[in-house]
Amino acid sequence: MQNTFDIEIYVRFCETDVAGHINNTSYFIYFEEARTKFFDLLQVKTNEDLSIILASAKCDFMKQGYANEILSLTTSVTKIGSKSYEMEHVVKRKETGEVLAVGISVAVCFNYKTQQSIVIPPELRSKLEEYLVLV
Amino acid sequence: MQNTFDIEIYVRFCETDVAGHINNTSYFIYFEEARTKFFDLLQVKTNEDLSIILASAKCDFMKQGYANEILSLTTSVTKIGSKSYEMEHVVKRKETGEVLAVGISVAVCFNYKTQQSIVIPPELRSKLEEYLVLV
Amino acid sequence: MQNTFDIEIYVRFCETDVAGHINNTSYFIYFEEARTKFFDLLQVKTNEDLSIILASAKCDFMKQGYANEILSLTTSVTKIGSKSYEMEHVVKRKETGEVLAVGISVAVCFNYKTQQSIVIPPELRSKLEEYLVLV
Amino acid sequence: MQNTFDIEIYVRFCETDVAGHINNTSYFIYFEEARTKFFDLLQVKTNEDLSIILASAKCDFMKQGYANEILSLTTSVTKIGSKSYEMEHVVKRKETGEVLAVGISVAVCFNYKTQQSIVIPPELRSKLEEYLVLV
Repeated sequence: MQNTFDIEIYVRFCETDVAGHINNTSYFIYFEEARTKFFDLLQVKTNEDLSIILASAKCDFMKQGYANEILSLTTSVTKIGSKSYEMEHVVKRKETGEVLAVGISVAVCFNYKTQQSIVIPPELRSKLEEYLVLV
Repeated sequence: MQNTFDIEIYVRFCETDVAGHINNTSYFIYFEEARTKFFDLLQVKTNEDLSIILASAKCDFMKQGYANEILSLTTSVTKIGSKSYEMEHVVKRKETGEVLAVGISVAVCFNYKTQQSIVIPPELRSKLEEYLVLV
Repeated sequence: MQNTFDIEIYVRFCETDVAGHINNTSYFIYFEEARTKFFDLLQVKTNEDLSIILASAKCDFMKQGYANEILSLTTSVTKIGSKSYEMEHVVKRKETGEVLAVGISVAVCFNYKTQQSIVIPPELRSKLEEYLVLV
Repeated sequence: MQNTFDIEIYVRFCETDVAGHINNTSYFIYFEEARTKFFDLLQVKTNEDLSIILASAKCDFMKQGYANEILSLTTSVTKIGSKSYEMEHVVKRKETGEVLAVGISVAVCFNYKTQQSIVIPPELRSKLEEYLVLV
């Protein structure tokens, strides 16, 4: 059974908009928090030969979330390629479990010195596999 | 020949991050500015029976952009469905024309009173068609 | 002895900038989170006759904070006037206790119906007094 | 007669909040845009011996601004000290001239190598003086 990585998010007032709900751009902020905390958890050191960059981000908005709410954000690994891996983020209203949004992030291993994408190092790959969803 | 909707973006310092370039979340802010200005241009009135909500947003990140740069952001309509329409956003470095990012937004016509998606009104449809890219 | 209201802040990547540290605008986001959580704690109901609006915000920046750090943010009440009250926010690096920034917020009781500031209700006043710093 | 530095701001949807108006934190984003563009105008080169850092920022909120509005933001220099200078920012609704907010920024000349504040270089000082308000 695969692991997931879970965080809670407090919806800040400034993350809402005049439509009365969480602004669409705020979900990408939440996904970033999930990614950086998830990567910290994996305890893989980045250095000048190994950086992780974001190649793509997507969010489907299902329901409205509101200021001062607590959200639960679950991240899992949905694909591991040669040089990149894909994560899925599910945002729920903590109190009711309703799904508010579902996101996808694609991260790429990158060498800033050579300015090229690189193969996922074995250490990172094996750790990502622990969070790989078997569909 | 289709029209496109073009705006220029000044990259604010706070829209960059410690990696030295425009933060991924900032591109979605730029797309939102493009969408609201594009909608204003169409001069279709929203009211309690017709709101436009965002169903999905995506961005593929190609190259780095930097603080204080001027970007050009071109938006076109790529699909018109029954109740929703899709826009493509291309972000270029104005000075060189290099493509930094390409985004997709899906907007849905929505009635907040009934809390349901609704058919695109004819007036809006005909205006969107002027910006529809014929692939 | 007065109480203080304490929260912890995780510094998001997007809250930093190309200068390598927390962007100045992010501190005001942190102060807002402190204010809304502090107000929730007081359990004073707002309604159409009583809203709390922000009249002024200030931040003095002392030291740099960095992405993925944990900050501790301490809020206390420093003045209670007739219609407004002032809070002080002290932001420290949690690990070392170094002060990174000190902020001031002035909140005003406001009636949106009459569009006028109003006297602080007794219930709110007595709760604010519990957090009033006696200098 | 002193000069002022003027920019226009388009209020983005994500810069408003559920209270229906521009969020307090957004004004600090506008001030930052004014500062960076103002500094570009002065054409003073920063380098590893001369950086400009922000020591303090303040905003008094007077009236509400709304999504999609155009604001005019006027910046002037209000004090020039030995190592720091102060700017005032006045935000008006462009259409009516109503003042929405007034801000203060204090910038300091800083040497990142020595990590110390430094005297304002003569070239910068003389350019700042052109924007100094004589009260």
